Amino acid sequence: MKRIGYLGPRGTFSHEAMVKYTGEVPYISREYPSIPDVFAAMLDGQLDEAIVPIENSIEGAVNATMDMMTQDNGLWIRAEVVIPVREHLLVKKGTGISEIRTVISHPQPLGQCRRFLAENLPGAVLKAAHSTAAAAEEVAAGTGGMAAIGSRAAAEVYGLEILREDIQDHDSNFTRFIVLGGSDAEKTGNDKTSLIFSTEDKPGSLYRILQIFNLWDINMTRIESRPARSGLGRYIFFVDVLGHREDEDLRDALTMVKRKTSFLKILGSYPVSPVDKI
Amino acid sequence: MKRIGYLGPRGTFSHEAMVKYTGEVPYISREYPSIPDVFAAMLDGQLDEAIVPIENSIEGAVNATMDMMTQDNGLWIRAEVVIPVREHLLVKKGTGISEIRTVISHPQPLGQCRRFLAENLPGAVLKAAHSTAAAAEEVAAGTGGMAAIGSRAAAEVYGLEILREDIQDHDSNFTRFIVLGGSDAEKTGNDKTSLIFSTEDKPGSLYRILQIFNLWDINMTRIESRPARSGLGRYIFFVDVLGHREDEDLRDALTMVKRKTSFLKILGSYPVSPVDKI
Repeated sequence: MKRIGYLGPRGTFSHEAMVKYTGEVPYISREYPSIPDVFAAMLDGQLDEAIVPIENSIEGAVNATMDMMTQDNGLWIRAEVVIPVREHLLVKKGTGISEIRTVISHPQPLGQCRRFLAENLPGAVLKAAHSTAAAAEEVAAGTGGMAAIGSRAAAEVYGLEILREDIQDHDSNFTRFIVLGGSDAEKTGNDKTSLIFSTEDKPGSLYRILQIFNLWDINMTRIESRPARSGLGRYIFFVDVLGHREDEDLRDALTMVKRKTSFLKILGSYPVSPVDKI
Repeated sequence: MKRIGYLGPRGTFSHEAMVKYTGEVPYISREYPSIPDVFAAMLDGQLDEAIVPIENSIEGAVNATMDMMTQDNGLWIRAEVVIPVREHLLVKKGTGISEIRTVISHPQPLGQCRRFLAENLPGAVLKAAHSTAAAAEEVAAGTGGMAAIGSRAAAEVYGLEILREDIQDHDSNFTRFIVLGGSDAEKTGNDKTSLIFSTEDKPGSLYRILQIFNLWDINMTRIESRPARSGLGRYIFFVDVLGHREDEDLRDALTMVKRKTSFLKILGSYPVSPVDKI
């Protein structure tokens, strides 16, 4: 059975993404307290695959994932998992909304559900927790009068009831996770390739890279720049393009991109996730 | 005196950014519990300026800032403030490191100082708080044996002592804030212009925009894509370019960009911040 590592504890969105990724296939899951710990276990041979947030996650540390991916560590992206951020009000079975005096969660979901809390629980004390899962655990262990804000997975793991569904102020939020392994995925015909590259800080350097993709009709689905750690004035770009790196066009384009960048790392090719409406 | 709004409470990095921005000039500060509240107060005429995080902030909700900026609200970016993320161990005066049993902070700084905590306070209980400022306040009100992780501003506001400086695991972290007002800044000769635009989801649409900037020798210092809320398959780009929007070249380039985008909003021109080494 595959050993899969994730950012714990059980009941976080990372856990939910792992459950969605594995589907019906049996696996052994291992939880870690931080993203660097997940990577360390992976590099140490304790895991076959690891799932980590890469974009827009409340479990933070997306920067940590990006930083680890720039390193020459032999890891490949072999899948992506996109889940909508849905926050629920979780209580011990039988607790009514009028009994709730304290609402516990990670500060970010507490902020994302401000409107619901102001309208429905104006008098409740808001208490910070390390994660939505830790909040659910605290409510499960408590004596009542408390609610957690968290995912469906958290409700299931800690035996809580979903008292109100989808209490987040905005419905357009999602989190993207990547699955890492020793190799990337086989070609399916509907694939995506992630890469990181670095250019010199002069006008038009990024433009010249995009010129190459344009020449080969390659569509970009994501681009993000951030300052390179090596100092100011140079940037690293995180880019996703459609296609598999073994497709002839993309392979030729990447060969040219390599010549026009000071650093290029191809992170892997993998099937495009059917994104839930966001 | 200028009335400036920020994401409170006092002692957060937002507060630190406001203090850096205002320098010696006297002002009236007003704190708000969330970014949408800061914007609401600004639009309501209660403030002359507002300072909000736009990039890489532990105070989260950078998405909230970006979402608000896409709206047609008459607000302009008139300055940027970049501060390095420096986390310190804060205690009540006289507390020694051996007396610390509990360390309190927002979950993200607790994660960013994991190595320090493991090496120096392996037995301490880690407790979550809503913000680094709330953690500092709790330590100040406590009876000892506690430490907070937070900024220098938090230490000053809550009368705490910095027991250990720069305890974050990585030194390359920074947060960028923008200052909003009713108009953007005058030309200084060393300016930046921020814009948001949207393109159709077909190969090369972003490329065609960058082609325009390339034609006018305009350098981009930041680019970020995110899915547009209106549905899948279309993207919004957040771009910073060097130059003032009243510079002849940039003005001409932006006129052409407008013709090639389905949506364009110029957020403002303002002096480039002298970024501390990151």
